[in-house]
Amino acid sequence: MRPRLYLAGPDVFHPASAALGAAKLALCREYGFEGLYPGEGSDETSASTSSPAIYRRCLAMMAGADAGLFNLTPFRGPSADVGTVFELGFMAAAGKPVFAYSNDGRDLLDRLRPDLVRGGDGSWRDAAGCFAEDFGNADNLMLDEPLALQGRRIHRVAAEPEARFTALDGVRLCLDAARRHFGLVRA
Amino acid sequence: MRPRLYLAGPDVFHPASAALGAAKLALCREYGFEGLYPGEGSDETSASTSSPAIYRRCLAMMAGADAGLFNLTPFRGPSADVGTVFELGFMAAAGKPVFAYSNDGRDLLDRLRPDLVRGGDGSWRDAAGCFAEDFGNADNLMLDEPLALQGRRIHRVAAEPEARFTALDGVRLCLDAARRHFGLVRA
Repeated sequence: MRPRLYLAGPDVFHPASAALGAAKLALCREYGFEGLYPGEGSDETSASTSSPAIYRRCLAMMAGADAGLFNLTPFRGPSADVGTVFELGFMAAAGKPVFAYSNDGRDLLDRLRPDLVRGGDGSWRDAAGCFAEDFGNADNLMLDEPLALQGRRIHRVAAEPEARFTALDGVRLCLDAARRHFGLVRA
Repeated sequence: MRPRLYLAGPDVFHPASAALGAAKLALCREYGFEGLYPGEGSDETSASTSSPAIYRRCLAMMAGADAGLFNLTPFRGPSADVGTVFELGFMAAAGKPVFAYSNDGRDLLDRLRPDLVRGGDGSWRDAAGCFAEDFGNADNLMLDEPLALQGRRIHRVAAEPEARFTALDGVRLCLDAARRHFGLVRA
């Protein structure tokens, strides 16, 4: 019985969602896992396209997964896709192993920096005066720390801009870590 | 014994974080709750300011809370603060009641629309070709649906721009719903 990995990420919004999902599912098999991809094209029930139906389907997939693999590449802003982050919180709370990558190699602070000013106390503030964390994290600490608590980190890959939402090197890094976690040996 | 509410939001990054926290804690008391505010100034242990320490402190607060009250106002982009969203996922997974507000009255789609084009199939796509949800939700469906599954919704308040991160009307709406949920009668 192959361990099941829930494949979370903004991939589901990408025009190549079906192909991305198929590529990730193939990689999962290569590493000894069964992938669960929530995007369109991953199941036959095209009826499940209402907002509540999609949510329930994702919850059921997460419930049936042994671990989660999260694409935390910044999406429509300096931080990861909020849907993916909700799922990270959901699976972390369930005590399941979580693995994550980002196709942006920078710290959150470096992404924010062009819009920040340094205050007299040394802290970084944005245009609204809001504090910016300076912990060397890939994103908000709520994304880095659940990984750290499990002895892991967000794998950062400095992908080319045109491959920002399609590069899969981070998936391989996560699968390699997951394989060690589950004690699988590559066939 | 007053039910305990975890007060999640980007409030903790605001320059007036301590005052915002104090105001929210006072509102909680007014409605019969004990608030738990994770921001600076809310506790005496200023040593707990490393990234892992903050994370552990928030986890402990969530574990000790009976429910969560989430500020899902868009933060540094079209969607809610990812730290807050992680906590929403965490508490939803724990089966605890969640209450939420946003100080932006619009649908996610309306916030994205200036940067979207409508494809031949009627779907909305951003500059990267990524699909934008058109469900009438306040944010990504992963934020609206856990509320809906509990018979609630994200309370939307069209706050003035200068009060975007400080308006508390949404807190009152959440507290009113929480009071009904916990069967409390206002003193």
